[in-house]
Amino acid sequence: MHRTFTRGRTIMGRLHKGDDLLPTLQRICSELGISQGNLSAIGAVAGARIGYYDQTQRRYEFLHLSRHLEILSLMGNVSLKDGEAFVHAHVVLGDESGGAFGGHLAEGTEVFACEFTIQELLTETPLRRVMDDPTGLFLWGEVG
Amino acid sequence: MHRTFTRGRTIMGRLHKGDDLLPTLQRICSELGISQGNLSAIGAVAGARIGYYDQTQRRYEFLHLSRHLEILSLMGNVSLKDGEAFVHAHVVLGDESGGAFGGHLAEGTEVFACEFTIQELLTETPLRRVMDDPTGLFLWGEVG
Amino acid sequence: MHRTFTRGRTIMGRLHKGDDLLPTLQRICSELGISQGNLSAIGAVAGARIGYYDQTQRRYEFLHLSRHLEILSLMGNVSLKDGEAFVHAHVVLGDESGGAFGGHLAEGTEVFACEFTIQELLTETPLRRVMDDPTGLFLWGEVG
Repeated sequence: MHRTFTRGRTIMGRLHKGDDLLPTLQRICSELGISQGNLSAIGAVAGARIGYYDQTQRRYEFLHLSRHLEILSLMGNVSLKDGEAFVHAHVVLGDESGGAFGGHLAEGTEVFACEFTIQELLTETPLRRVMDDPTGLFLWGEVG
Repeated sequence: MHRTFTRGRTIMGRLHKGDDLLPTLQRICSELGISQGNLSAIGAVAGARIGYYDQTQRRYEFLHLSRHLEILSLMGNVSLKDGEAFVHAHVVLGDESGGAFGGHLAEGTEVFACEFTIQELLTETPLRRVMDDPTGLFLWGEVG
Repeated sequence: MHRTFTRGRTIMGRLHKGDDLLPTLQRICSELGISQGNLSAIGAVAGARIGYYDQTQRRYEFLHLSRHLEILSLMGNVSLKDGEAFVHAHVVLGDESGGAFGGHLAEGTEVFACEFTIQELLTETPLRRVMDDPTGLFLWGEVG
């Protein structure tokens, strides 16, 4: 299931020390009126909250990492859920000995520094998240 | 060695539970007639098959991870090999305790959920994969 | 703090066995006159030098990995520092058993193979790196 999009605005910027990573990205998208697109980022966090989806129990388990970590990659997308712009992103984080960790980015991840890019995408039939029975997740429906 | 490209179509979509990740991305590129571009994705897999290139023995060693894992990042490209669109992608995967793993994405990686973007790129002199003597890999030749 | 950009050139290419990853990407940007943009890459290295920013001591600690590793992801950006194009990139690397490592990409990372994309971004008020007091890092200033 896929759509062809027109490229809209390209936004590059940074977050500030102390920002909550996910809700701040979400707020920027809302303020700019971006309802679909891609995003990527690198940076560092003072602590992170990440999720893992238990495919059998069909629920997210969350983990809090109370450590200073590099954001080795943040990759995600923006689409509509309940008519509002919704950011879905996964992160890979790195520690002082080079070890890597990661998961589904959750609220409660404290920015130390973060440089991001958002590529807005435009289309006539938007991608909308609806409950997907096979997975228990809110995924893009077959029709807009 | 590099070329300047014109941006073609931007495709965003999702795969379905049970899809084989790499061949499905490959099939989508073939069906859309995309012969060059970039791709990225996040999601989750029910199991993964990843490769590591042994630079001394000059061959891929493959590893099967029979676990439920998050796709923390999938980053790759599309180019021509033997006249056909060929997807080359690397993945980082995450487990329930936040640990990260990864390698060269191989056939045999079972999708649980996957949200992808493909950016088509167009050029007059395409990138074609040819055997590269210094590495033993099929890399983009100096001439198209 | 963010800006809207116009998309410039899209460059895709590869590096060569033995290249020093970060300075070679930097040189390509300089030669092409790219002063702002994004970059991504996958590939493999014969050894890597990566940094971790100690948020308390406010200095980078560097680590040398004398191993053959896959580049599972390289994600970064290009912007102006002291009037010159400056590449900031983070990498995730993978070993023969699928383990993942990573950090801030530093000079001294030896390419085995590397396929990269650079997306040039253009704007009237460029992003310029200036010393940021709260972090001790050179980050994009509030004004151009």
